[in-house]
Amino acid sequence: MAYANPTGEFTRDQRYITTRITADGRDGYPVEPGRYRLVVARACPWANRAIIVRRLLGLEDVLSQGIAGPTHDVRSWTFDLDPGGRDPVLGIERLQEAYFKRFPAYEKGITVPAIVDVPTGQVVTNDFAQITIDLSLEWTRYHRDGAPKLYPEELRDQIDKVNRVVFTDVNNGVYRAGFAGSQEAYEKAYGKLFDRLDGLSDLLSGQRYLVGDTITEADVRLFTTLARFDAAYHGHFKCNRSKLTEMPVLWAYARDLFQTPGFGDTIDFADIKKHYYVVHKDINPTQIVPAGPDLSGWLTEHGREKLGGRPFGDGTPPPPPRPGEVVPAGHGATG
Amino acid sequence: MAYANPTGEFTRDQRYITTRITADGRDGYPVEPGRYRLVVARACPWANRAIIVRRLLGLEDVLSQGIAGPTHDVRSWTFDLDPGGRDPVLGIERLQEAYFKRFPAYEKGITVPAIVDVPTGQVVTNDFAQITIDLSLEWTRYHRDGAPKLYPEELRDQIDKVNRVVFTDVNNGVYRAGFAGSQEAYEKAYGKLFDRLDGLSDLLSGQRYLVGDTITEADVRLFTTLARFDAAYHGHFKCNRSKLTEMPVLWAYARDLFQTPGFGDTIDFADIKKHYYVVHKDINPTQIVPAGPDLSGWLTEHGREKLGGRPFGDGTPPPPPRPGEVVPAGHGATG
Repeated sequence: MAYANPTGEFTRDQRYITTRITADGRDGYPVEPGRYRLVVARACPWANRAIIVRRLLGLEDVLSQGIAGPTHDVRSWTFDLDPGGRDPVLGIERLQEAYFKRFPAYEKGITVPAIVDVPTGQVVTNDFAQITIDLSLEWTRYHRDGAPKLYPEELRDQIDKVNRVVFTDVNNGVYRAGFAGSQEAYEKAYGKLFDRLDGLSDLLSGQRYLVGDTITEADVRLFTTLARFDAAYHGHFKCNRSKLTEMPVLWAYARDLFQTPGFGDTIDFADIKKHYYVVHKDINPTQIVPAGPDLSGWLTEHGREKLGGRPFGDGTPPPPPRPGEVVPAGHGATG
Repeated sequence: MAYANPTGEFTRDQRYITTRITADGRDGYPVEPGRYRLVVARACPWANRAIIVRRLLGLEDVLSQGIAGPTHDVRSWTFDLDPGGRDPVLGIERLQEAYFKRFPAYEKGITVPAIVDVPTGQVVTNDFAQITIDLSLEWTRYHRDGAPKLYPEELRDQIDKVNRVVFTDVNNGVYRAGFAGSQEAYEKAYGKLFDRLDGLSDLLSGQRYLVGDTITEADVRLFTTLARFDAAYHGHFKCNRSKLTEMPVLWAYARDLFQTPGFGDTIDFADIKKHYYVVHKDINPTQIVPAGPDLSGWLTEHGREKLGGRPFGDGTPPPPPRPGEVVPAGHGATG
């Protein structure tokens, strides 16, 4: 496994392209309607964050979205879902091309989410953790009326604190379990993951959201991992102490978000399963994709309203997804 | 995968050594106390049947038991749990030796359970389906007082009928899912498996045991697969529509049996997990063994007494396992 270091621990290459698109354009890329394209894959939890945040903030008209297919080879994500296998706006077959256009000798991972500058066809950034924050803070001028505040000043420290442990033990923790190169490294990641999930369960048994009484960036980040938990991480990454469906508080929390406009309507379980089970040949050499799990539970009552909270704060839920951005029929939680 | 035929379907090689040990000795191997050794591996569901039946019938003093370790290489099961890595009675390191002693050019699988003739060191039979029936019907003279009737004349047709579908869709069905060489073959096996489990759930919602109101051979055969379901088949074999713990009737039925003397006290979850995840390198190349699932639920109340039934009929439960045959501490369902 190329991922594991000599002690068998998976180490995520965190050297991203840190150029930022900002309101003042200080990195050379000012916020500008219609100029950029957000490239995602529905399968990917990191890209899923950007899909959700863009939708919650109502940025669809100013920041277009390209969708790569769920599987890819060593040469990167491809636009195989598009007619002719090309992104209709960027005109490229592989996301790699946008990376090479900016950095001809680019050697790091070709990852989603990435934002591409449409006029030049060059990737601007793939710094997933910064992308959603910048959508919240730099693109404010273009937010829809009623857009929620996902990263409010007064809660920022708390959000950052939750995000750090959720990233280490949960978002990335499942990968550390699944890509571990030794039994010891696996068990360490597994232990930290479930300890953290138990801690989060305790926290969320008394409050509806992770920070404050409204949805924030912290919820978006935890949600995209929970949504993949039973479909991919439980079996494929051996995160199998319990399914999400067997952790009552987290399961209700995840369902609550899933049923909130902007969350569940971005989840493509078929793409998620296909991605993990087909791409990681080194842990699933047969590339057979499990037919399970039964997903019908996602739409059942969660009972979390009784904890109070105001999902969108002073804002409102987003309207339904744009026609071209609807998750294909049969890929969601239709049971 | 060596197991799958050209259409991707797993086909179990069912050519076993069909010599029988009978009361009248018509195959040259008469039932005789102390003459034979039952070789098992606690990990193996087919061997587990024989472990359970021998114990329920109280044959420990007349038919000794050798225990192979959970993992093995292409050259077969080994006695690596024994001091010096040799079975203390047969004096061999690998079960293969007993097969070769009888058939020097033996080319089929070296499987457990197998019964070995101690004086000659030759394997007599590995015909797992016949072995337990013969323990019930041919070794009667040596059954303990109070041994249950696991294969009573008047229920035989019904038991055979249940056994046939349980073998095809469940016992062997999980292997057909896990060893499928194509997505189509996998999905076919998965569909049949869960259809059958749903049918068995319906049946068992109204009656405590599969056939009649006491434990029979049919329950033994279903139980050994259910006991491995969440620990191995759910993840490793992608039998993941639902966990056993998510199928309430079957889960209660399995717990009821687990808590019945002679069943749960033969289950070694550590060996089970190690066997499947280490031996099948072709579907788990990392050979990392999952730390889950949480097994503490096996000892919780099952509430099946309310369905009536008399577990041992006119007989009695077996006494605790012999000291040398107790599942190692920490390998059972101690949670």
